[in-house]
Amino acid sequence: MIKAVSFDIWYTLLDLSKFYLIVSEKISEVSGKPLNVVSDLIFKAYREALKSRLEGNFKRIIVDSAEFFASRLGISPEELFRAVVASINDSRISEMLYDDVLETLETLKSSGFKLGLLGNVMFWPGMITRYILYVNKALKFFDVTIFSDEIGLQKPSREIFEYESSKLGVKLEEMVHVGDSVENDLAGAVIAGVKAVLINRSSQTPCLRLGRNACLINTLRKLPEAIEELNKT
Amino acid sequence: MIKAVSFDIWYTLLDLSKFYLIVSEKISEVSGKPLNVVSDLIFKAYREALKSRLEGNFKRIIVDSAEFFASRLGISPEELFRAVVASINDSRISEMLYDDVLETLETLKSSGFKLGLLGNVMFWPGMITRYILYVNKALKFFDVTIFSDEIGLQKPSREIFEYESSKLGVKLEEMVHVGDSVENDLAGAVIAGVKAVLINRSSQTPCLRLGRNACLINTLRKLPEAIEELNKT
Repeated sequence: MIKAVSFDIWYTLLDLSKFYLIVSEKISEVSGKPLNVVSDLIFKAYREALKSRLEGNFKRIIVDSAEFFASRLGISPEELFRAVVASINDSRISEMLYDDVLETLETLKSSGFKLGLLGNVMFWPGMITRYILYVNKALKFFDVTIFSDEIGLQKPSREIFEYESSKLGVKLEEMVHVGDSVENDLAGAVIAGVKAVLINRSSQTPCLRLGRNACLINTLRKLPEAIEELNKT
Repeated sequence: MIKAVSFDIWYTLLDLSKFYLIVSEKISEVSGKPLNVVSDLIFKAYREALKSRLEGNFKRIIVDSAEFFASRLGISPEELFRAVVASINDSRISEMLYDDVLETLETLKSSGFKLGLLGNVMFWPGMITRYILYVNKALKFFDVTIFSDEIGLQKPSREIFEYESSKLGVKLEEMVHVGDSVENDLAGAVIAGVKAVLINRSSQTPCLRLGRNACLINTLRKLPEAIEELNKT
């Protein structure tokens, strides 16, 4: 029986493309490079960084990825950090949540589930993401919030899921982890013995069982249904 | 660009339930237990064994799982081995392939893909499965056939996918692995940097992209289409 729901953050709760657009504007202002060039570079760097991290790079979690992004953007890591700080002071920071998030968190919370956040970080610390979630009125729903830079573990490692389950006080098989990444979220969870829900908002399929321990959904509104389905095993 | 296709075996190419039914008949004959009882026990033991193996048990690959199954079936490991040997001498052993297998292997081979087999084993050695594939006229399509008992590695470990890619002479990202298990096949592959296709013949969805590096299909006939889709990344 599932007792706790763990959430990935970017592209699951918060729209990373909206945040990267603000960051790109700030970098463009500082560096004088056109916004579309900066924006293309940052998304390209992100795709490459995801791959590189899976290959086991970025051991120094924040520093290595900041150097990676800064070098690809043609700026210094210091300029990159300044752009992030400028971004979280931008008023649009309160519009980062997908429209299916708050009502789903509300529903799960009132159904008695424990809720956890499990986020990998790139070039800004988890504390900044925690603040963005606070501004978006989503932080209060979570019993635990775990960021890779704060505990030195990253998804998809088995250990980070074990750590979360112990913090939530539930067994691994009593947890479901929800995220958009097949590698970090779905694969990491199921190998650790945690149930998994993959969210892909562009999928045609509202709710589909993928295997004994996994479902695919195209909106978080389907999450309670997916949890019911996974409880049937 | 995908250059090689790796296949899981049971429930992907060969119908394990058909084989377990024959094995159950042989065990029933030897032990005097009713067939339906033996058959229920063997499928239950299989589900439990999959879970236990994922938790890191069954380090002595064949011996530990043979003891596990034998104890749940109330027979000795020797009786279990004898039932397997009796089963591969049964004429129905040549009817284990799904009907979408041979034409798909033919198509992939003639399109120039290298083909690999990557199988975890339970209580019989990989050599027996290799023989079953031979009797079913499927073995000849494969450039390499890798079984966990022969190399001391098991899916979903990253190392077994690295081993296969080196044997096939392609890079990890030039490989796609096809299988029915979210844990062993999909998750193991994508974490290793290999593309993955999950086969679920009871799904309503013929071919669905699950993420950057994974697709879901409901028949192997859709595999060439899924490979084309994954090449688009």
